[in-house]
Amino acid sequence: MNPDLSKLDAYIEEADVDGYLIEADGETSDQRYLSGFTAPDPFVTLYTGETHLLVSALEYGRAQRTARADSVARHTEYDHRENIAEYGPTTGKHRTLAAFLDAHGVESVAVPEACPAGTADGLREQGVVVDVDYDGVVQSIRATKTDAEIDNIRAAQRANEAAMARAESLLEAAAAEDGTLLYDGEPLTSERVKREIEIELLRQDCALDETIVACGRDAADPHDRGSGPLEAGEPIIVDIFPRSKETGYHADMTRTFCVGEPDETVEEWYDLTHEAQQAALDAIEAGASGSEVHAAVCEVYEAAGEPTLRSDPETETGFIHTTGHGVGLDVHESPRVSEQDAELKPGHIITVEPGLYDPTVGGVRIEDLVVVTEDGYENLTDYEKQLVVGDDA
Amino acid sequence: MNPDLSKLDAYIEEADVDGYLIEADGETSDQRYLSGFTAPDPFVTLYTGETHLLVSALEYGRAQRTARADSVARHTEYDHRENIAEYGPTTGKHRTLAAFLDAHGVESVAVPEACPAGTADGLREQGVVVDVDYDGVVQSIRATKTDAEIDNIRAAQRANEAAMARAESLLEAAAAEDGTLLYDGEPLTSERVKREIEIELLRQDCALDETIVACGRDAADPHDRGSGPLEAGEPIIVDIFPRSKETGYHADMTRTFCVGEPDETVEEWYDLTHEAQQAALDAIEAGASGSEVHAAVCEVYEAAGEPTLRSDPETETGFIHTTGHGVGLDVHESPRVSEQDAELKPGHIITVEPGLYDPTVGGVRIEDLVVVTEDGYENLTDYEKQLVVGDDA
Repeated sequence: MNPDLSKLDAYIEEADVDGYLIEADGETSDQRYLSGFTAPDPFVTLYTGETHLLVSALEYGRAQRTARADSVARHTEYDHRENIAEYGPTTGKHRTLAAFLDAHGVESVAVPEACPAGTADGLREQGVVVDVDYDGVVQSIRATKTDAEIDNIRAAQRANEAAMARAESLLEAAAAEDGTLLYDGEPLTSERVKREIEIELLRQDCALDETIVACGRDAADPHDRGSGPLEAGEPIIVDIFPRSKETGYHADMTRTFCVGEPDETVEEWYDLTHEAQQAALDAIEAGASGSEVHAAVCEVYEAAGEPTLRSDPETETGFIHTTGHGVGLDVHESPRVSEQDAELKPGHIITVEPGLYDPTVGGVRIEDLVVVTEDGYENLTDYEKQLVVGDDA
Repeated sequence: MNPDLSKLDAYIEEADVDGYLIEADGETSDQRYLSGFTAPDPFVTLYTGETHLLVSALEYGRAQRTARADSVARHTEYDHRENIAEYGPTTGKHRTLAAFLDAHGVESVAVPEACPAGTADGLREQGVVVDVDYDGVVQSIRATKTDAEIDNIRAAQRANEAAMARAESLLEAAAAEDGTLLYDGEPLTSERVKREIEIELLRQDCALDETIVACGRDAADPHDRGSGPLEAGEPIIVDIFPRSKETGYHADMTRTFCVGEPDETVEEWYDLTHEAQQAALDAIEAGASGSEVHAAVCEVYEAAGEPTLRSDPETETGFIHTTGHGVGLDVHESPRVSEQDAELKPGHIITVEPGLYDPTVGGVRIEDLVVVTEDGYENLTDYEKQLVVGDDA
């Protein structure tokens, strides 16, 4: 993958610094994106138009082979041992880093907001100018995906669908007894379904972030992961967001299921949410704002008399979250699909996930993952939307 | 769990600041430890002798119920919306945080090295003095475990043993054909064994960090996770370090297996490593230094003519890492068991993991997890040490 870093060049020019510096481990998305390298311990990437890495001896060989860098250096090349011996581990480390910057003619750097304060202050003590990039320029570059990144997310979404199918098959096979779902004679719990989802994701070579399988009151809180026995006739929200172990890219999808007959409100909510999602999808195209997509959802809900945060900022029921978010190396990244103005561009990958919530009813949410294109969108999600599954006794 | 924070009180006094400030998500160990709270998004903990949290509205209820805090506040209590509207999201956020500090009479804070530079600089712009704690005082407090923490680690170690038993059973059941191990008629790979380990850990309600199943040349590099078919007659290093999903605490254990007859060098290395581990364990007691424990390992290896980093700092074969590390909320934490002086104290939990490596032979490592006690140690590991398993054809 060769990202287009022209925005970073422009940022460096505008900020009037010599380079952009990231010190973080390879699980930090800006770091992985800029360096093309991942490692468990923090390492340094300096971007000056060229990309230069500073890594430990342990990571040196692998960084040389796999990083997307114009040069890779080891600490020892900058008298690291001598610096530590003479100045101690903290100042010694900062002197080594300052010497690395100096070797690349860099006297001033911008750093991400999350740069360790210890490193920023330590470099300043060595005479380096360190400015914080509060705009998150690398994050904004990451919002637009290359074709290779889209393929990575597509692959993670295929894994996601396999996991969702596993969850649905458990629900389908469950039998209702006194309102509680049984599977193999035992109560079917949120925990059991989550475990089977996670095992399927492992088989698909995906890592496990959290998974949501929430029923009843749990489902009425969009941030509740769910726990305990699942009930017949109640909406069950299943929200899965795996990360490919190999590529680091995520997918994200939600379906709501009901084993047996839901009550009328849940059915209405489901149809309304489906309609709201389609209205949002219809509003997506390059040049549109995330706020227009969000407004399309609010309009459908409000027209049906459901509260939204737009119609009542204090509401605790109805549509109480935003419409979506970017997905990539982070499961939540730019752009936001909310009341904020955020221009959609070709190659943005966003979720579209309207939902309705009320503790007295439960919750309903439907979420697809799409790529913004010049004249619309491509839906990366290939999974049926059907509320009622299994035991319809 | 009620940690003893008297060292933090002393640090604040010594550093001449009004409080200690952590802004991080709940997966960050210092944050989880000090607040007793975990959340996916960053929140703020201020320690002044009392513990005060500042969280989003979303987390407020849960923080009130579950955090170990004297007070929990929401951003809205400090005019957050007005600040954002008037000063934008960045400065607005810093003004809210400064107002929270001011409400607690705090004009100066110490922060961990990893504190976001954006927050440190932003608070300084609001007139707050921000000093970086390069000593990592919370990390040093975390090194000494309470009884509740020891129980958490013990429970994670039980899960670890179940996963190791699963790996061993796969190896036991494998058949050698032309030197390659077969299982169910297919080549048994590192990836397959890792997957079964991870599935077992999921069943034990543990999260998955990486796992090492490394054979042959892979095993000769202590940082190689291993890949591809496993070979008969070769040492296979299995290193598992799970984290309990519920408590966040880790365990850590390594065993080395050989399916069928190993060559003589591997057998010698195994016995020697076993002996080195016992020598290290015998050196552990409160008041001893980690460097003495590490020296005990080096002495056994050097007496047998094996190179160590002590006898030859440039060696790439022999004993090429340190003896161990602390384990807790982080899988690698204080104290180190290395050539550095680090006094062992009752309640420290450390690994003891000597090993020998050479690309022409492979690698051997044996790792147990122990608690330091007044007069020795308690071994938390309950898993046999036996090199040869299964097919001895």
